[in-house]
Amino acid sequence: MALLSETIDRITPLQERFFTRAQARLDSLTKPTGSLGRLEEFARCLVAITENEMPSVAPKAVFTFAGDHGVTEEGVSAFPKEVTRQMVLNFLRGGAGINVLARHAGADVAVIDIGVDCDFGAVDGLIHKKVVRGTKNFTKGPAMTRQEAIRCIEVGIELATEYAAKGYGLFGTGEMGIGNTTPSSAIVSVMTGIPAAEVTGRGTGITDTALANKVRVIEKGIAINAPDAGDAIDVLAKVGGSEIGGIAGLILGAAANRVPTVIDGFISTAGALIAFGIEPKVRDYLFAAHESVEIGHVAALRKIGLRPILDLDLRLGEGTGAALAMMLIEGSLKIYREMATFGEAGVSTEGK
Amino acid sequence: MALLSETIDRITPLQERFFTRAQARLDSLTKPTGSLGRLEEFARCLVAITENEMPSVAPKAVFTFAGDHGVTEEGVSAFPKEVTRQMVLNFLRGGAGINVLARHAGADVAVIDIGVDCDFGAVDGLIHKKVVRGTKNFTKGPAMTRQEAIRCIEVGIELATEYAAKGYGLFGTGEMGIGNTTPSSAIVSVMTGIPAAEVTGRGTGITDTALANKVRVIEKGIAINAPDAGDAIDVLAKVGGSEIGGIAGLILGAAANRVPTVIDGFISTAGALIAFGIEPKVRDYLFAAHESVEIGHVAALRKIGLRPILDLDLRLGEGTGAALAMMLIEGSLKIYREMATFGEAGVSTEGK
Repeated sequence: MALLSETIDRITPLQERFFTRAQARLDSLTKPTGSLGRLEEFARCLVAITENEMPSVAPKAVFTFAGDHGVTEEGVSAFPKEVTRQMVLNFLRGGAGINVLARHAGADVAVIDIGVDCDFGAVDGLIHKKVVRGTKNFTKGPAMTRQEAIRCIEVGIELATEYAAKGYGLFGTGEMGIGNTTPSSAIVSVMTGIPAAEVTGRGTGITDTALANKVRVIEKGIAINAPDAGDAIDVLAKVGGSEIGGIAGLILGAAANRVPTVIDGFISTAGALIAFGIEPKVRDYLFAAHESVEIGHVAALRKIGLRPILDLDLRLGEGTGAALAMMLIEGSLKIYREMATFGEAGVSTEGK
Repeated sequence: MALLSETIDRITPLQERFFTRAQARLDSLTKPTGSLGRLEEFARCLVAITENEMPSVAPKAVFTFAGDHGVTEEGVSAFPKEVTRQMVLNFLRGGAGINVLARHAGADVAVIDIGVDCDFGAVDGLIHKKVVRGTKNFTKGPAMTRQEAIRCIEVGIELATEYAAKGYGLFGTGEMGIGNTTPSSAIVSVMTGIPAAEVTGRGTGITDTALANKVRVIEKGIAINAPDAGDAIDVLAKVGGSEIGGIAGLILGAAANRVPTVIDGFISTAGALIAFGIEPKVRDYLFAAHESVEIGHVAALRKIGLRPILDLDLRLGEGTGAALAMMLIEGSLKIYREMATFGEAGVSTEGK
């Protein structure tokens, strides 16, 4: 708990003067004022987050946290639980969607076992941070103990601090966990106060009957555990997941280290909701990669106050949307750093 | 006219069997069916356009056509006409927004003088294809002769064929021309039948009074010239611009050579409307990079039947949005080519 408290204490509000200075530079570049729209917004945020008037293009990393979910016993997913382990091995071999898109974006992929229900042994490349061997079935009691939930958050904080120290300048979040749209919908329902039925979708693609069952499972989990919406750690422990806790911790740790973080889709946003519940100032350090087709996603983003960057009907997770959005965010930084000013280029500013 | 006719004759409809085969491969990859949303759509289109079941990641080029507009005499732009020439020089030195974003996307930038009202002399790197020294003021008669309009289209076709022969596999369109939202709004109004006031925006940033004047100028240009909406070349000649004609030609030439083209914002879409008016089959060869803040853009995209990829409040032009969208399209191709299949990765497909 000491690490979490210290981390929260280090998260400070962004300072207006950095936005102002960034805008002054943007307005000196050879383009009509404001004509690069959200790219200019991204660049201003990067300057204010890093408190660096000329932030550099630093290495990037996507953190893909993997965990299993006891609630899969209730038939909430289209895929069997074994797929979590199989996909972790696919990540390590470089064959998954996140590998391809992170390579394309020039980002590294960190694959973390934070709660998979198997023993990976000494497999190459995996970051071993197992807190639980799968969560418990939350229709029968809490998914995790409070201590386990805190430990998941601390894993994320430790990774953020380690990668920030290595010089990484932009983080992305991602996850793998068969069944994890179920705890995510539960978290979003509790944290936004919206009924489960309105924030529960088809995940990887379940039938109408399975969807109705999934909603009942979430309602039951919330009813049995009575998570306290005013205590995000309680929500994470009772109806959450280990990978969601890792993401929440990464977001908190990134903000404490002044590293901007791109959250991926629905599950990452559930993690962001937990981080936001713990410390609302994290909002200013976040970019929302995309608007997922998962129906609870918009409500979760709205609760935090984030406008998504992309809208590509994605619903894969893993960090794939984050990798794509990173390319646009990095593009905004290059615009900020590399474009010629009106003075340098000898272009008339008469119209400005 | 022979080149244009021949080019049109070479544009064929896409064949359903290529979409089907591409989808079969996408469905074999280690992800829930359809979970990469529009990336899968892009990949299917790339396969069908190239008629290649495993299209390669080829060099990319953004074509930035520059031209001046006689109608700037009527006070329709926030910037003086000289800026067209100054920005062309900025492009050649690599300092403009399109240079930065094309470098970021790994695309080359081809800068074409198709109608700038100055003599560039032997400046390095410029592609000299001048058809007019600026168009004429369309409030007093046609902007160009029909022959000039056709010649502009042919310039675009020639470039498309030349770059396709060099092995380029993805084109982007862009433009520079102070005042060119005015002919673009005129084209969109004529081609969609929507009143000028509803498709005319602030361009690089004009006042309310200047906007009201801009609408009147466009209405006058359309009234005096009476362009024939059923004859896109007539529309281009009477109320268009040289760079818009170049873009239309590039799109036609790209489709004839089976090269997918990413159209940028409002002005590029006006060029696409001309190409679409000449040969509607070009639609299937196009990607719409983004939804610009320019108010006529949505109507123009809807007329052609294109859904924009990005929505980043951009209004710079030059090809900047196209460069950004190219990164996503290329990402979709890498997904298609590089992801492991369920069989290769040993991942269960039980849920599928």
